[in-house]
Amino acid sequence: MADRYELCLSGFGGQGLILAGIILAEAIGIHEGKYVSQTQSYGPEARGGKSKAEVVVSDTPIDYPKPTDIDLLLAMSQDACDTYYIDLKAEGILVVDSTYVSEVPSNQAIQVPCTKIATDLGLKMVANIVSLGAISEVSDCVSYASLKKAILTRAPKGTEKLNLAALSEGAKAAKKAMS
Amino acid sequence: MADRYELCLSGFGGQGLILAGIILAEAIGIHEGKYVSQTQSYGPEARGGKSKAEVVVSDTPIDYPKPTDIDLLLAMSQDACDTYYIDLKAEGILVVDSTYVSEVPSNQAIQVPCTKIATDLGLKMVANIVSLGAISEVSDCVSYASLKKAILTRAPKGTEKLNLAALSEGAKAAKKAMS
Repeated sequence: MADRYELCLSGFGGQGLILAGIILAEAIGIHEGKYVSQTQSYGPEARGGKSKAEVVVSDTPIDYPKPTDIDLLLAMSQDACDTYYIDLKAEGILVVDSTYVSEVPSNQAIQVPCTKIATDLGLKMVANIVSLGAISEVSDCVSYASLKKAILTRAPKGTEKLNLAALSEGAKAAKKAMS
Repeated sequence: MADRYELCLSGFGGQGLILAGIILAEAIGIHEGKYVSQTQSYGPEARGGKSKAEVVVSDTPIDYPKPTDIDLLLAMSQDACDTYYIDLKAEGILVVDSTYVSEVPSNQAIQVPCTKIATDLGLKMVANIVSLGAISEVSDCVSYASLKKAILTRAPKGTEKLNLAALSEGAKAAKKAMS
Protein backbone atom coordinates (compact mmCIF):
# COMPACT_ATOMS: atom_id res chain seq x y z
CA MET A 1 0.00 0.00 0.00
CA ALA A 2 1.25 3.48 -0.90
CA ASP A 3 1.92 5.95 1.90
CA ARG A 4 -1.41 7.69 1.45
CA TYR A 5 -4.67 5.82 0.85
CA GLU A 6 -8.00 7.59 0.44
CA LEU A 7 -11.50 6.18 0.84
CA CYS A 8 -14.87 7.76 0.20
CA LEU A 9 -18.03 6.15 1.61
CA SER A 10 -21.08 7.62 -0.11
CA GLY A 11 -24.81 7.11 -0.32
CA PHE A 12 -27.87 8.78 1.09
CA GLY A 13 -28.62 10.11 4.57
CA GLY A 14 -29.70 7.43 7.04
CA GLN A 15 -27.51 4.65 5.66
CA GLY A 16 -25.02 5.04 8.49
CA LEU A 17 -22.10 6.17 6.37
CA ILE A 18 -20.73 8.53 9.02
CA LEU A 19 -20.68 5.74 11.58
CA ALA A 20 -19.08 3.45 8.97
CA GLY A 21 -16.39 6.10 8.44
CA ILE A 22 -15.74 6.36 12.17
CA ILE A 23 -15.52 2.58 12.59
CA LEU A 24 -13.17 2.31 9.62
CA ALA A 25 -11.01 5.15 10.96
CA GLU A 26 -10.85 3.60 14.42
CA ALA A 27 -10.06 0.17 12.99
CA ILE A 28 -7.08 1.54 11.11
CA GLY A 29 -5.96 4.32 13.46
CA ILE A 30 -6.32 2.54 16.78
CA HIS A 31 -5.91 -1.13 15.87
CA GLU A 32 -3.41 -0.87 13.02
CA GLY A 33 -1.38 2.07 14.33
CA LYS A 34 -1.54 4.21 11.21
CA TYR A 35 -2.48 7.85 11.05
CA VAL A 36 -6.07 8.37 10.00
CA SER A 37 -8.19 11.43 9.45
CA GLN A 38 -11.94 11.10 9.02
CA THR A 39 -14.08 13.92 7.68
CA GLN A 40 -17.70 14.52 6.92
CA SER A 41 -19.19 17.58 5.38
CA TYR A 42 -22.58 19.15 5.86
CA GLY A 43 -24.19 22.03 4.08
CA PRO A 44 -26.57 22.85 1.30
CA GLU A 45 -25.61 19.67 -0.56
CA ALA A 46 -26.40 17.48 2.46
CA ARG A 47 -30.02 18.59 2.29
CA GLY A 48 -30.22 17.01 -1.15
CA GLY A 49 -30.04 13.67 0.64
CA LYS A 50 -26.48 12.73 -0.29
CA SER A 51 -24.18 11.65 2.53
CA LYS A 52 -20.43 11.16 2.39
CA ALA A 53 -17.69 10.21 4.84
CA GLU A 54 -14.06 10.43 3.86
CA VAL A 55 -11.14 8.55 5.39
CA VAL A 56 -7.49 9.26 4.68
CA VAL A 57 -4.89 6.76 5.89
CA SER A 58 -1.17 7.37 6.05
CA ASP A 59 2.01 6.03 7.60
CA THR A 60 2.92 9.57 8.58
CA PRO A 61 0.93 12.42 10.17
CA ILE A 62 -1.70 13.79 7.77
CA ASP A 63 -1.46 17.41 6.80
CA TYR A 64 -4.31 17.70 4.29
CA PRO A 65 -7.15 15.48 5.51
CA LYS A 66 -9.49 15.63 2.50
CA PRO A 67 -9.18 13.04 -0.25
CA THR A 68 -7.58 14.45 -3.35
CA ASP A 69 -7.51 11.32 -5.46
CA ILE A 70 -9.74 8.48 -4.26
CA ASP A 71 -8.34 4.94 -4.03
CA LEU A 72 -11.60 3.29 -2.99
CA LEU A 73 -15.13 4.55 -3.53
CA LEU A 74 -18.11 2.90 -1.85
CA ALA A 75 -21.37 4.01 -3.48
CA MET A 76 -24.57 2.97 -1.74
CA SER A 77 -26.89 4.95 -4.00
CA GLN A 78 -27.12 5.57 -7.74
CA ASP A 79 -26.95 9.31 -7.14
CA ALA A 80 -23.74 9.02 -5.08
CA CYS A 81 -22.21 6.67 -7.65
CA ASP A 82 -22.98 9.08 -10.49
CA THR A 83 -21.63 12.05 -8.52
CA TYR A 84 -18.42 10.72 -6.99
CA TYR A 85 -17.18 8.21 -9.58
CA ILE A 86 -15.32 11.00 -11.34
CA ASP A 87 -13.11 11.47 -8.24
CA LEU A 88 -11.95 7.84 -8.29
CA LYS A 89 -8.39 7.18 -9.51
CA ALA A 90 -8.08 5.33 -12.83
CA GLU A 91 -6.78 2.25 -10.98
CA GLY A 92 -9.10 2.82 -7.99
CA ILE A 93 -11.60 0.32 -6.60
CA LEU A 94 -15.35 0.89 -6.91
CA VAL A 95 -17.68 -1.02 -4.60
CA VAL A 96 -21.40 -0.50 -5.15
CA ASP A 97 -24.42 -1.59 -3.17
CA SER A 98 -26.18 -3.34 -6.02
CA THR A 99 -29.47 -3.11 -4.12
CA TYR A 100 -29.56 0.56 -5.12
CA VAL A 101 -26.95 0.96 -7.87
CA SER A 102 -28.05 -0.68 -11.09
CA GLU A 103 -26.09 1.38 -13.60
CA VAL A 104 -22.40 0.90 -12.89
CA PRO A 105 -19.96 3.22 -14.64
CA SER A 106 -17.22 0.59 -14.94
CA ASN A 107 -17.13 -3.12 -15.69
CA GLN A 108 -14.56 -3.39 -12.89
CA ALA A 109 -17.13 -2.39 -10.25
CA ILE A 110 -17.50 -4.84 -7.39
CA GLN A 111 -21.22 -5.33 -6.96
CA VAL A 112 -22.37 -6.37 -3.48
CA PRO A 113 -26.06 -6.27 -2.51
CA CYS A 114 -25.27 -4.75 0.91
CA THR A 115 -28.78 -3.60 1.79
CA LYS A 116 -30.35 -6.85 0.59
CA ILE A 117 -27.89 -8.85 2.70
CA ALA A 118 -28.63 -6.65 5.74
CA THR A 119 -32.39 -7.03 5.24
CA ASP A 120 -31.98 -10.81 4.99
CA LEU A 121 -30.06 -10.74 8.29
CA GLY A 122 -33.09 -9.02 9.81
CA LEU A 123 -31.96 -5.39 10.11
CA LYS A 124 -31.58 -3.14 7.08
CA MET A 125 -29.61 -0.68 9.23
CA VAL A 126 -26.52 -2.91 9.25
CA ALA A 127 -25.99 -2.44 5.50
CA ASN A 128 -23.14 -0.07 6.43
CA ILE A 129 -21.41 -2.88 8.30
CA VAL A 130 -21.96 -5.27 5.38
CA SER A 131 -20.18 -2.70 3.21
CA LEU A 132 -17.25 -2.56 5.65
CA GLY A 133 -16.92 -6.35 5.35
CA ALA A 134 -16.77 -5.96 1.57
CA ILE A 135 -14.09 -3.28 1.90
CA SER A 136 -11.92 -5.54 4.09
CA GLU A 137 -12.08 -8.16 1.35
CA VAL A 138 -11.31 -5.95 -1.65
CA SER A 139 -8.60 -3.70 -0.17
CA ASP A 140 -5.49 -4.10 1.97
CA CYS A 141 -6.13 -0.82 3.76
CA VAL A 142 -7.82 -2.48 6.71
CA SER A 143 -7.85 -5.99 8.11
CA TYR A 144 -10.94 -7.97 8.97
CA ALA A 145 -9.65 -8.42 12.54
CA SER A 146 -9.24 -4.68 13.14
CA LEU A 147 -12.73 -3.97 11.82
CA LYS A 148 -14.10 -6.62 14.13
CA LYS A 149 -12.49 -4.94 17.15
CA ALA A 150 -13.69 -1.49 16.13
CA ILE A 151 -17.24 -2.75 15.57
CA LEU A 152 -17.33 -4.41 18.98
CA THR A 153 -16.35 -1.08 20.55
CA ARG A 154 -19.03 0.91 18.71
CA ALA A 155 -21.93 -1.56 18.44
CA PRO A 156 -24.77 -0.92 20.91
CA LYS A 157 -25.04 -3.66 23.54
CA GLY A 158 -27.02 -6.63 22.28
CA THR A 159 -26.27 -5.99 18.60
CA GLU A 160 -22.73 -7.41 18.54
CA LYS A 161 -23.68 -10.75 17.01
CA LEU A 162 -25.77 -9.18 14.27
CA ASN A 163 -23.06 -6.67 13.40
CA LEU A 164 -20.37 -9.35 13.19
CA ALA A 165 -22.65 -11.45 10.97
CA ALA A 166 -23.10 -8.40 8.72
CA LEU A 167 -19.34 -7.93 8.51
CA SER A 168 -18.81 -11.59 7.67
CA GLU A 169 -21.55 -11.71 5.02
CA GLY A 170 -20.19 -8.55 3.40
CA ALA A 171 -16.71 -10.05 3.11
CA LYS A 172 -18.11 -13.30 1.69
CA ALA A 173 -20.28 -11.50 -0.86
CA ALA A 174 -17.37 -9.36 -2.04
CA LYS A 175 -15.19 -12.44 -2.44
CA LYS A 176 -17.90 -14.04 -4.54
CA ALA A 177 -18.38 -10.85 -6.61
CA MET A 178 -14.68 -10.79 -7.46
CA SER A 179 -14.41 -14.45 -8.45
CA MET B 1 -19.16 36.21 12.62
CA ALA B 2 -16.27 36.12 10.17
CA ASP B 3 -16.56 33.94 7.09
CA ARG B 4 -14.58 31.09 8.64
CA TYR B 5 -15.08 29.96 12.23
CA GLU B 6 -13.11 27.08 13.73
CA LEU B 7 -13.94 25.01 16.80
CA CYS B 8 -11.96 22.31 18.55
CA LEU B 9 -13.67 19.98 21.05
CA SER B 10 -11.04 18.18 23.11
CA GLY B 11 -10.77 15.90 26.10
CA PHE B 12 -10.19 12.22 26.68
CA GLY B 13 -11.59 9.16 24.91
CA GLY B 14 -15.06 8.15 26.07
CA GLN B 15 -16.33 11.69 26.74
CA GLY B 16 -18.35 11.65 23.53
CA LEU B 17 -16.44 14.43 21.79
CA ILE B 18 -16.80 12.88 18.33
CA LEU B 19 -20.57 12.66 18.73
CA ALA B 20 -20.56 16.25 20.05
CA GLY B 21 -18.66 17.30 16.93
CA ILE B 22 -21.17 15.53 14.67
CA ILE B 23 -24.15 17.08 16.47
CA LEU B 24 -22.57 20.53 16.28
CA ALA B 25 -21.78 20.08 12.58
CA GLU B 26 -25.30 18.87 11.81
CA ALA B 27 -26.84 21.73 13.82
CA ILE B 28 -24.93 24.31 11.80
CA GLY B 29 -24.76 22.56 8.42
CA ILE B 30 -28.26 21.20 8.20
CA HIS B 31 -30.28 23.58 10.37
CA GLU B 32 -28.44 26.84 9.73
CA GLY B 33 -27.54 26.27 6.09
CA LYS B 34 -23.83 27.00 6.39
CA TYR B 35 -21.02 24.86 5.05
CA VAL B 36 -19.46 22.70 7.74
CA SER B 37 -16.65 20.20 7.74
CA GLN B 38 -16.11 17.93 10.75
CA THR B 39 -12.92 15.99 11.23
CA GLN B 40 -11.49 13.61 13.76
CA SER B 41 -8.08 12.10 13.75
CA TYR B 42 -6.87 8.76 15.00
CA GLY B 43 -3.41 7.37 15.28
CA PRO B 44 -0.58 6.92 17.71
CA GLU B 45 -1.67 10.00 19.66
CA ALA B 46 -5.23 8.69 20.11
CA ARG B 47 -3.87 5.77 22.07
CA GLY B 48 -2.53 8.26 24.61
CA GLY B 49 -6.14 8.83 25.61
CA LYS B 50 -6.62 12.28 24.08
CA SER B 51 -9.64 12.77 21.85
CA LYS B 52 -10.37 15.70 19.57
CA ALA B 53 -13.10 16.65 17.10
CA GLU B 54 -12.71 19.67 14.87
CA VAL B 55 -15.46 21.65 13.20
CA VAL B 56 -14.96 24.33 10.58
CA VAL B 57 -17.89 26.56 9.63
CA SER B 58 -18.05 28.81 6.61
CA ASP B 59 -20.48 30.76 4.48
CA THR B 60 -18.79 29.31 1.41
CA PRO B 61 -17.63 25.78 0.49
CA ILE B 62 -14.66 24.71 2.62
CA ASP B 63 -11.47 23.85 0.84
CA TYR B 64 -9.15 23.14 3.77
CA PRO B 65 -11.19 21.43 6.47
CA LYS B 66 -8.69 21.41 9.34
CA PRO B 67 -8.64 24.29 11.80
CA THR B 68 -5.69 26.56 11.25
CA ASP B 69 -6.44 29.15 13.90
CA ILE B 70 -8.99 28.13 16.52
CA ASP B 71 -11.82 30.51 17.44
CA LEU B 72 -13.30 28.34 20.18
CA LEU B 73 -11.59 25.62 22.19
CA LEU B 74 -13.53 23.29 24.45
CA ALA B 75 -11.19 21.44 26.82
CA MET B 76 -12.74 18.65 28.88
CA SER B 77 -9.47 17.43 30.39
CA GLN B 78 -6.41 19.13 31.84
CA ASP B 79 -4.21 17.30 29.36
CA ALA B 80 -6.25 18.52 26.37
CA CYS B 81 -6.31 22.05 27.75
CA ASP B 82 -2.53 22.08 28.19
CA THR B 83 -1.98 20.63 24.70
CA TYR B 84 -4.41 22.60 22.53
CA TYR B 85 -4.52 26.02 24.22
CA ILE B 86 -1.57 27.11 22.13
CA ASP B 87 -3.67 26.72 18.96
CA LEU B 88 -6.35 29.13 20.21
CA LYS B 89 -6.41 32.61 18.64
CA ALA B 90 -5.46 35.50 20.91
CA GLU B 91 -9.08 36.69 20.92
CA GLY B 92 -10.46 33.11 20.91
CA ILE B 93 -12.88 31.67 23.44
CA LEU B 94 -11.77 28.97 25.89
CA VAL B 95 -14.44 26.84 27.57
CA VAL B 96 -13.20 24.31 30.13
CA ASP B 97 -14.97 21.52 31.97
CA SER B 98 -14.00 22.67 35.45
CA THR B 99 -14.74 19.18 36.79
CA TYR B 100 -11.44 18.10 35.22
CA VAL B 101 -9.57 21.31 34.38
CA SER B 102 -8.34 23.06 37.49
CA GLU B 103 -5.39 24.97 36.08
CA VAL B 104 -6.71 27.38 33.46
CA PRO B 105 -4.17 29.06 31.19
CA SER B 106 -6.15 32.32 30.90
CA ASN B 107 -8.27 34.40 33.25
CA GLN B 108 -10.75 34.74 30.37
CA ALA B 109 -11.54 31.01 30.46
CA ILE B 110 -15.22 30.20 30.84
CA GLN B 111 -15.39 27.54 33.51
CA VAL B 112 -18.39 25.21 33.36
CA PRO B 113 -18.54 22.02 35.47
CA CYS B 114 -19.95 19.98 32.55
CA THR B 115 -19.29 16.53 33.98
CA LYS B 116 -20.55 17.49 37.42
CA ILE B 117 -23.75 18.89 35.90
CA ALA B 118 -24.21 15.71 33.84
CA THR B 119 -23.64 13.51 36.90
CA ASP B 120 -26.21 15.56 38.85
CA LEU B 121 -28.69 15.02 36.00
CA GLY B 122 -28.16 11.28 36.48
CA LEU B 123 -25.93 10.35 33.53
CA LYS B 124 -22.28 11.36 33.34
CA MET B 125 -22.30 10.47 29.62
CA VAL B 126 -24.27 13.59 28.71
CA ALA B 127 -21.41 15.89 29.73
CA ASN B 128 -20.75 16.34 25.99
CA ILE B 129 -24.27 17.72 25.54
CA VAL B 130 -23.83 20.01 28.56
CA SER B 131 -20.74 21.38 26.83
CA LEU B 132 -22.72 22.01 23.61
CA GLY B 133 -25.23 24.03 25.66
CA ALA B 134 -22.34 26.09 27.00
CA ILE B 135 -21.02 26.65 23.47
CA SER B 136 -24.42 27.91 22.24
CA GLU B 137 -24.33 30.47 25.05
CA VAL B 138 -20.78 31.76 24.59
CA SER B 139 -20.57 31.86 20.78
CA ASP B 140 -22.76 33.02 17.88
CA CYS B 141 -21.61 30.14 15.69
CA VAL B 142 -24.62 27.99 16.53
CA SER B 143 -28.08 28.69 17.89
CA TYR B 144 -29.67 26.89 20.79
CA ALA B 145 -32.64 25.96 18.56
CA SER B 146 -30.46 24.31 15.91
CA LEU B 147 -28.59 22.30 18.54
CA LYS B 148 -31.90 21.15 19.97
CA LYS B 149 -33.03 19.86 16.55
CA ALA B 150 -29.72 18.11 15.90
CA ILE B 151 -29.76 16.46 19.35
CA LEU B 152 -33.30 15.19 18.84
CA THR B 153 -32.16 13.56 15.58
CA ARG B 154 -29.12 11.86 17.14
CA ALA B 155 -30.31 11.03 20.68
CA PRO B 156 -31.22 7.37 21.22
CA LYS B 157 -34.94 6.88 21.79
CA GLY B 158 -35.91 7.48 25.39
CA THR B 159 -33.00 9.80 26.13
CA GLU B 160 -34.42 12.94 24.49
CA LYS B 161 -35.59 14.58 27.72
CA LEU B 162 -32.31 13.98 29.50
CA ASN B 163 -30.28 15.30 26.57
CA LEU B 164 -32.36 18.46 26.30
CA ALA B 165 -32.01 19.02 30.05
CA ALA B 166 -28.23 18.65 29.64
CA LEU B 167 -28.24 21.22 26.84
CA SER B 168 -30.29 23.65 28.89
CA GLU B 169 -28.19 23.27 32.05
CA GLY B 170 -25.02 23.79 30.03
CA ALA B 171 -26.31 27.03 28.58
CA LYS B 172 -27.42 28.26 32.01
CA ALA B 173 -24.11 27.40 33.64
CA ALA B 174 -22.16 29.19 30.92
CA LYS B 175 -24.32 32.29 31.30
CA LYS B 176 -23.64 32.26 35.02
CA ALA B 177 -19.91 31.71 34.49
CA MET B 178 -19.72 34.76 32.23
CA SER B 179 -21.66 37.10 34.52
